[in-house]
Amino acid sequence: MQFYMPTELITGEGCVTGNAQKLARYGKRCLIVTGGSAAARSGALQDVEEALRSQEISFTHYAGIEQNPTLASCEEGGRLAYEAGADFVLGIGGGSPLDAAKAISVFAANPGMTEQVFYSAEWDHAPLPIVLIGTTAGTGSEVTSVSVLTDSKGKKHSIHDRRIYAALAMSDARYTMTLPRAATLSTGIDALCHCIESYFSRKADPFSRLFSVRGIRLGLPVLQQVADASPDSMPTLQQRETLYQVSIFGGMAINPTGTVFPHNVGYYLTERYRIPHGFACATFLPELLTHVKEQAPALCGAFYEACGTSEEELVNLAKKVVPVQGIRLSEDEIRTALPRWENNGTVRNTVGTVTTEQIAEMLRKGF
Amino acid sequence: MQFYMPTELITGEGCVTGNAQKLARYGKRCLIVTGGSAAARSGALQDVEEALRSQEISFTHYAGIEQNPTLASCEEGGRLAYEAGADFVLGIGGGSPLDAAKAISVFAANPGMTEQVFYSAEWDHAPLPIVLIGTTAGTGSEVTSVSVLTDSKGKKHSIHDRRIYAALAMSDARYTMTLPRAATLSTGIDALCHCIESYFSRKADPFSRLFSVRGIRLGLPVLQQVADASPDSMPTLQQRETLYQVSIFGGMAINPTGTVFPHNVGYYLTERYRIPHGFACATFLPELLTHVKEQAPALCGAFYEACGTSEEELVNLAKKVVPVQGIRLSEDEIRTALPRWENNGTVRNTVGTVTTEQIAEMLRKGF
Repeated sequence: MQFYMPTELITGEGCVTGNAQKLARYGKRCLIVTGGSAAARSGALQDVEEALRSQEISFTHYAGIEQNPTLASCEEGGRLAYEAGADFVLGIGGGSPLDAAKAISVFAANPGMTEQVFYSAEWDHAPLPIVLIGTTAGTGSEVTSVSVLTDSKGKKHSIHDRRIYAALAMSDARYTMTLPRAATLSTGIDALCHCIESYFSRKADPFSRLFSVRGIRLGLPVLQQVADASPDSMPTLQQRETLYQVSIFGGMAINPTGTVFPHNVGYYLTERYRIPHGFACATFLPELLTHVKEQAPALCGAFYEACGTSEEELVNLAKKVVPVQGIRLSEDEIRTALPRWENNGTVRNTVGTVTTEQIAEMLRKGF
Repeated sequence: MQFYMPTELITGEGCVTGNAQKLARYGKRCLIVTGGSAAARSGALQDVEEALRSQEISFTHYAGIEQNPTLASCEEGGRLAYEAGADFVLGIGGGSPLDAAKAISVFAANPGMTEQVFYSAEWDHAPLPIVLIGTTAGTGSEVTSVSVLTDSKGKKHSIHDRRIYAALAMSDARYTMTLPRAATLSTGIDALCHCIESYFSRKADPFSRLFSVRGIRLGLPVLQQVADASPDSMPTLQQRETLYQVSIFGGMAINPTGTVFPHNVGYYLTERYRIPHGFACATFLPELLTHVKEQAPALCGAFYEACGTSEEELVNLAKKVVPVQGIRLSEDEIRTALPRWENNGTVRNTVGTVTTEQIAEMLRKGF
């Protein structure tokens, strides 16, 4: 059993302005990292600026983070932070700006570092301290040492390193209020997949499973409600607060375990067909549940009992939530993609044995 | 909701020698802090010395920590660490050496500091890094920022400070194998009390309650088994591994919440009658359960349901475990002691309102 999650996490209404004094620990100059407009629309950016001003911390704002952020954007952010003499990096947003803020803190401390050195994790200097303010309830990036970036060849990779844990994460579910129902479902199902996949990781232990089970028990009924609501409805604050907790528990669960094959195969759908990350992962959830039923039946039984759910319920939720895209992959395309899953760490991390032929079968089904 | 527990925790057979390289992070010289003979008897001291030697870390051994450690011993340890030029402090033992190691790390970094400055937490320098190796399953000190020490007036105080979290804690349940049944029960019931008391703290939140419930669900059946076993039997390794998990979950639970009145009233029994800490706390567990039934019935119902237990079961366990001491306090003695609980933070931390008259009633019952 092991546990390591050094981030100070504070959640609740008004937590950013109410804990402004904590920001002063990290220095006098800050690089704020966001995507386009969500940080301001959510209200988080205004609260952060107010909190920084109250502590007389100066800031530069880099708003250049795209969905599925590229390493190039992170290099640029790192250069900006370096030039501004930033003492710390503060990311605001969903998974993309938060993961990018982690990478930017590495580049900021290691100017001119190559892509190869970045991925090798042989950094000369420790990253700058990282503060994260979430505006979606999905990624769990606030409490993980993971950053998922798209490399210069267009491929999504995750890096895991204890030096990129946030020093501080503050989560106010009100910032997720502007997120439409579809995005709430995509991020929420991502969080649920973190909990489920972690449970079926070879590295799962009593700690990670405690978080998995709690996240699933909290999240399932709320995701059902949101999935059954009318397409133009907006989830309530209470629902969003619960989903935020699920995302935190999901992050705590995957920290020691990582994810398993649905996440990694999902990256491919996102890279190639721009399917939102949560939907892309949930696409392969039914396959995971079939796989573990066959290859780890006792564990599977303990899982459904602990979580108070069933394979049927989870499969139905995944099918209800994931929009049908009408995508069919050609056999050529599948054959070209398959080598990436041979000897892939995330695939091997799944309990039992997942063959590339199994993955080919999943891809043949279409989406 | 908040969470902060930056300690890296590793448990399992062989974890100390198997993770020796992690010790090298903290420097080249180490002060080992232990009590009298338990550290060697448990096998932990030998493993630690082997691990330190493998990393070419030199060490000085301070074996001067008594049960319910005094601040004076910690000052002495701090002086030794300072004189030896220690880069970090490594505590081996139950709650006493572990709590002492935390205080020693403060004194080592702040030579000549007075008792008053120590308790004020206005330390000039950050404590040395702390590594903790537990040899009992009770305190949870491995994962808390708490140190309970006896001051120069003979009174037990706890200090809480984020700077005294261990950097690294390693827990191998085999080190608890030499602990006799009675000490296993006293430490085990302490861990269970941490879980229960935390649940009924005003500061409890979804995180702390998750740990509380898990600890109680794991710990209750094992403590029942050990309590029902013959007096000269020894708990098994499997039972001890479970109790170790309970102690960790208990520590994680009390981290954000602290304990409530049984712990603080229990300190008095320990100071005055040398009743072991776990038994002293469990003495007042039935009173806590009566109190919350009356003052927080809904919370109380949720608690028993979540934990799969009942008031009757917990009271019976406490009565079975705690040896009858035949102690009766005089009315004079009670009146003299009572002021310490007026406006006491731990007492006020209990849900509902606990009056000093209630505490007087508890003390009148005798032990």
